[in-house]
Amino acid sequence: MLKRKTILLTLFFVALCYAANACHVLPKQKAQTNIMTDKPYPITLVIHGGAGTILKQNMTDSLEQQYRQALEQALLAGYAVLQNGGTSLNAVQAAIVFMEDSPLFNAGKGAVLTNEGTVELDAAVMDGKTGSAGAVAGIKTVKNPILAARKVMENSPHVMMTGTGADAFAKEQGLEIVDPAYFITDYRLRALQKILEQEKTDTTGYRIELSESGKEKYGTVGAIALDQYGNLAAGTSTGGMTNKRYGRIGDSPIIGAGTFARNSTCAVSATGHGEFFIRNVVAYDVSALMEYLHLPVQEAAKRVIFDKLLPQGGFGGLIALDQQGNFTMPFNSEGMYRGYMNAKTAKPQVFIFKDE
Amino acid sequence: MLKRKTILLTLFFVALCYAANACHVLPKQKAQTNIMTDKPYPITLVIHGGAGTILKQNMTDSLEQQYRQALEQALLAGYAVLQNGGTSLNAVQAAIVFMEDSPLFNAGKGAVLTNEGTVELDAAVMDGKTGSAGAVAGIKTVKNPILAARKVMENSPHVMMTGTGADAFAKEQGLEIVDPAYFITDYRLRALQKILEQEKTDTTGYRIELSESGKEKYGTVGAIALDQYGNLAAGTSTGGMTNKRYGRIGDSPIIGAGTFARNSTCAVSATGHGEFFIRNVVAYDVSALMEYLHLPVQEAAKRVIFDKLLPQGGFGGLIALDQQGNFTMPFNSEGMYRGYMNAKTAKPQVFIFKDE
Repeated sequence: MLKRKTILLTLFFVALCYAANACHVLPKQKAQTNIMTDKPYPITLVIHGGAGTILKQNMTDSLEQQYRQALEQALLAGYAVLQNGGTSLNAVQAAIVFMEDSPLFNAGKGAVLTNEGTVELDAAVMDGKTGSAGAVAGIKTVKNPILAARKVMENSPHVMMTGTGADAFAKEQGLEIVDPAYFITDYRLRALQKILEQEKTDTTGYRIELSESGKEKYGTVGAIALDQYGNLAAGTSTGGMTNKRYGRIGDSPIIGAGTFARNSTCAVSATGHGEFFIRNVVAYDVSALMEYLHLPVQEAAKRVIFDKLLPQGGFGGLIALDQQGNFTMPFNSEGMYRGYMNAKTAKPQVFIFKDE
Repeated sequence: MLKRKTILLTLFFVALCYAANACHVLPKQKAQTNIMTDKPYPITLVIHGGAGTILKQNMTDSLEQQYRQALEQALLAGYAVLQNGGTSLNAVQAAIVFMEDSPLFNAGKGAVLTNEGTVELDAAVMDGKTGSAGAVAGIKTVKNPILAARKVMENSPHVMMTGTGADAFAKEQGLEIVDPAYFITDYRLRALQKILEQEKTDTTGYRIELSESGKEKYGTVGAIALDQYGNLAAGTSTGGMTNKRYGRIGDSPIIGAGTFARNSTCAVSATGHGEFFIRNVVAYDVSALMEYLHLPVQEAAKRVIFDKLLPQGGFGGLIALDQQGNFTMPFNSEGMYRGYMNAKTAKPQVFIFKDE
């Protein structure tokens, strides 16, 4: 008798769900419980804003404050999505859109300039639940490249689109298109001019990406998140390297190199000297170390950044997060703009330098 | 006394080597012995010419013969390099250049056409000894895309170049530039026209890559080699998918997805539905399974193609080779143009269908 009641109730519930879904009155999925721990998934957001030669002595207090504030706001924007029952994909997107819109970071507005004084933007996003992914490279007119990557993932049979074709697709999808001048800031113009002058007296080939101190800096923004449904997501967006040419693409838009997400292992977004990150398939390697050697996320990420990349001279860092909410933000450069927010923190936690 | 003699002789030999190197009179490295087996490395070349719906009943005897001959000639071209003491990189390059020049394969001349009736070619190469890599995507004027990828690897600080920038770089490097019409064959023009007509009556979005039988076919060429110095190399070249648009890039030029090489594990070149191969980081995954789970190359490749890709509907295949000369050519599609040559075979061994 009880069994029949249960069956009927279940059938009723299923029918209700279908009806609700059909009428689009089911706005939220139900929060899930982690079957491993029997606890709700701990919503978590981790972001980065680039790694490199970032030293306190090279930065004014005012600029440092601006970066900290921007990182906090990006975290708040993304975390609000998670708190309101939103998905990790939407949280990642919200945090990255904020950083793309900020002129402080090398992504969207404020991106570094190519040799020709233009911007060429790259972005990627990956869904840890389904394994689907989208990426754009070398786009010039889409206000928020991360949204273009999301459209490629969701509304095309492809993973990666490039150049004017990718711009055209984004426009067809109704994304906001801007004049390329929108992206250009005085700061990045001066950086390009400086590097072009250095090039004149330098016979070692063309120079790429120098920070104010003359050392390398790798600006890129990224976000990874875990939502209450237990789904991981990762996203990355960048302008690449100052003075880049020949349609150069770094690791950011390459699935497996700069961006990767899989629920059973981790979500990863990387920032650094892209060529090293591509050759070492960095983001997927963190996942592979977890899957095949059963390393915890912190240990897997540490091994890639310090044991594999550092001896090769591959400078940079990454953020990685697993389905239990464990995360790590290792880097082998002088600094990395970074931060996180989860249920244990009342407010966003942000860091820039090494010993924070 | 003997010790001093040995030291002096060693010093003399080192000085001689330096002098010879400086004068460029040291054309060949010495063949190496595998310290694990104390035997010389068994030079090996493995190639593929694409996977997909390749069935005997859909192919005339004459066409089948043409494919078999072309595969044999590509193997002979690459193997001659290895036999003459050349490097695995040069062997891979020779085999791929042959297939790019042949109108039979979807790479270089005879590549499939984009929605606009043009060609957009992708290629990548990786050196298993140094881990360096080069790739080009969306190029339109370079006769042999694999040579452009090699130039990116050796003469630029980058790994990946795209679009007109990549074409410009190749031209600066002195590579042969051709009129885009060079690549176009009647066969591919008809294939595009057919697909465009199907699209008119199909409301499910745009169609990509259909073979004569109406099923999917993934043309791409690739080669992997082991030279007598114990160095592995991998290369891949493709025209992508018929009717592709929006600057779509598949797995071929993506290091870790379609192409990967590392002396300590394997060299891999893949062919198939590129989007699945990107999302699953296929080429590097074979390497990771060997490195972390110590699987033999055959087992690692099999696991990726059958246990991981097949359940997702990710059709295609790959070729993989380790430093001991063990190799494998698994595919989960109906057929794959493929072949190999090593010391044990008096002549090239080529295969097309499943049960060969």
